[in-house]
Amino acid sequence: MATQRIRNFLATHCSESPCLVVDLDVVRENYLNFEKTFLQSRIFYAIKANPAPEILRLLVSLGSSFDAASVAEIEMALKAGAISECISFGNTIKKERDIMRAYALGVSLYAVDCIEEVEKIARSAPGSRVFCRILTDGRGAEWPLSRKFGCVPAMAVDVLRRAHQLGLQAHGVSFHVGSQQTDLNAWDRALSDAAKIFECLGKEGIQLKLVNMGGGFPTRYLKDVPTTQAYGTAIFDSLKKHFGNHIPETIIEPGRAMVGNAGVIRTEVVLISKKANNDNVRWVYLDVGKFNGLVETMDEAIRYPIETTHDDKTMEPCILAGPTCDSADIMYEKMPYLLPLSLTVGDELLIHGTGAYTMSYASVAFNGFEPLRSYVI
Amino acid sequence: MATQRIRNFLATHCSESPCLVVDLDVVRENYLNFEKTFLQSRIFYAIKANPAPEILRLLVSLGSSFDAASVAEIEMALKAGAISECISFGNTIKKERDIMRAYALGVSLYAVDCIEEVEKIARSAPGSRVFCRILTDGRGAEWPLSRKFGCVPAMAVDVLRRAHQLGLQAHGVSFHVGSQQTDLNAWDRALSDAAKIFECLGKEGIQLKLVNMGGGFPTRYLKDVPTTQAYGTAIFDSLKKHFGNHIPETIIEPGRAMVGNAGVIRTEVVLISKKANNDNVRWVYLDVGKFNGLVETMDEAIRYPIETTHDDKTMEPCILAGPTCDSADIMYEKMPYLLPLSLTVGDELLIHGTGAYTMSYASVAFNGFEPLRSYVI
Repeated sequence: MATQRIRNFLATHCSESPCLVVDLDVVRENYLNFEKTFLQSRIFYAIKANPAPEILRLLVSLGSSFDAASVAEIEMALKAGAISECISFGNTIKKERDIMRAYALGVSLYAVDCIEEVEKIARSAPGSRVFCRILTDGRGAEWPLSRKFGCVPAMAVDVLRRAHQLGLQAHGVSFHVGSQQTDLNAWDRALSDAAKIFECLGKEGIQLKLVNMGGGFPTRYLKDVPTTQAYGTAIFDSLKKHFGNHIPETIIEPGRAMVGNAGVIRTEVVLISKKANNDNVRWVYLDVGKFNGLVETMDEAIRYPIETTHDDKTMEPCILAGPTCDSADIMYEKMPYLLPLSLTVGDELLIHGTGAYTMSYASVAFNGFEPLRSYVI
Repeated sequence: MATQRIRNFLATHCSESPCLVVDLDVVRENYLNFEKTFLQSRIFYAIKANPAPEILRLLVSLGSSFDAASVAEIEMALKAGAISECISFGNTIKKERDIMRAYALGVSLYAVDCIEEVEKIARSAPGSRVFCRILTDGRGAEWPLSRKFGCVPAMAVDVLRRAHQLGLQAHGVSFHVGSQQTDLNAWDRALSDAAKIFECLGKEGIQLKLVNMGGGFPTRYLKDVPTTQAYGTAIFDSLKKHFGNHIPETIIEPGRAMVGNAGVIRTEVVLISKKANNDNVRWVYLDVGKFNGLVETMDEAIRYPIETTHDDKTMEPCILAGPTCDSADIMYEKMPYLLPLSLTVGDELLIHGTGAYTMSYASVAFNGFEPLRSYVI
């Protein structure tokens, strides 16, 4: 829920609705919590979750490393004070000239998932460390990932061998267990695959050093999620189980879990209507929608907690939609959202848990609506 | 397909990939075609399809009117030289202060679909003309609209009556038959509903004057679509059938059909890979995707024609994906796209029919990737 700092800010700053407010104190607390729990791991913040400079600067000051999806994100991290040794170019899909630029900026850790990408890196970032991403099944994730990134473990062996042959450091294996992952065993299956790749290449004399365990750590929306400590324990147990007393260096890449619960979107009810007099659900139109911040409601994937000033009254099912003339700009329709019957046009709502994947996803100006304004306090 | 002007521009301007190039000659041709076909209708260009100032200025010079989704779009039209009498505030979801701003800018034509919105307009844009949007079934549309906009015809009668009682001009009825509508009869069903509303309110002494027949006119992607002339004939026949010799004023709001075929996106192949050695489809990653221009590939709704320089070679099924670290950034997966086997990393592709709903939909900077660059020539 919104912190007192956010509530004070909203009460004293009469900025136009909608807007996002992110509380750095919560980000700090999340970072320290990860640091305390994952004592053996390095933390690479997934910049894409929220690239606000204030967040990056805070995380630099706390000692975080960074997972960048593009050269622009590498530059953001550097500008915030990160050193290039603390930046991983974690996107498996990179133009060769972008690899060249990253290398020139000092980045020496790259994700790959195929031989073609290894060859680009060998040419344009010679001698760098590469880790190969493997596919996982995504079971247990609220938003399982597609097969877009990664290859099967058997192919990862070929990819890393090729990296070694081309003079790169075949550094390790990465995976992502799926977004908002609440199954503590999800990491176990992937770590088992990773250990086999270590073993297989080890027999050929190629000693991998790193397991990048990715993101997927959840933030709390409407349902409770396991604690960071529970993840830490489960993952450390799996590392021991699969790697025995040769536990490799590990990396985690929290994004959503670092900033999700630090942000709140303030929005305004623009219109409430029915389509026919006998309809039993109301349509509630907000000034924020899929194209200016709430893209993660796509397929109703993420159900955000919504606070109104009428929370004690009778509730009624509402279809929630955004302000654009786009008929796909609907947040919750298949599963209408219960909101107070007394809700009325002009009311302000707070949408909680919106610190991640909101601001940067917003469209430039679809329908003329400006991108989501963001305040980091 | 790309015009010679676009090909010449791309050949002589070595801008970074990806980019969108829009040929104004094609927009002009589309406008004149609509004008010639819909002799009795006023044309309100749906600005949201592509709000580039060059396009708006051209359409002003040709005598077009404009359908705006927001105050920002109203301002864009005015800046391009449109007069306020030629602007319709066509979004049924409007903040009351935005209605006030539009009214102050001289706009006097508003869309509504419920009594609450009528009351806002009566307070903040007194005396204005309003038209009520009714629901249609969307049969025959490649992208049927949701129920987000409009009300059932029986409710439209109440809405327009209320407008009349509040001193507004109950001006007419609007509908939208669904995007990329290829069933020529779709307008007939909606016009039948509209005529009944005219008749019903006429008996009460409220004479409606306008039918806003919306957009939905298609552009050609991979499949042929009926000609503008075929739509004109079918719609005029329906108007005669339902309104006899009292055909009302009519408006059409083409967006996609005005600019879709005028634009081409140039993109580059960033990576081609397989997930396992025995996969029978290849993954082809482009530098443009769902979050920097191709959002209309959502649910694989729109299948764009893609041109490569290898079109004469053996074809092979490819999954097409964008450059971001987002696993949802995939364009075609359920129905892979046939592309030449000789396609290779670094190749340039042209994605045709991308003049509409691309540039303005792009995200501000998701993953650090900049919005789609656009050139209007």
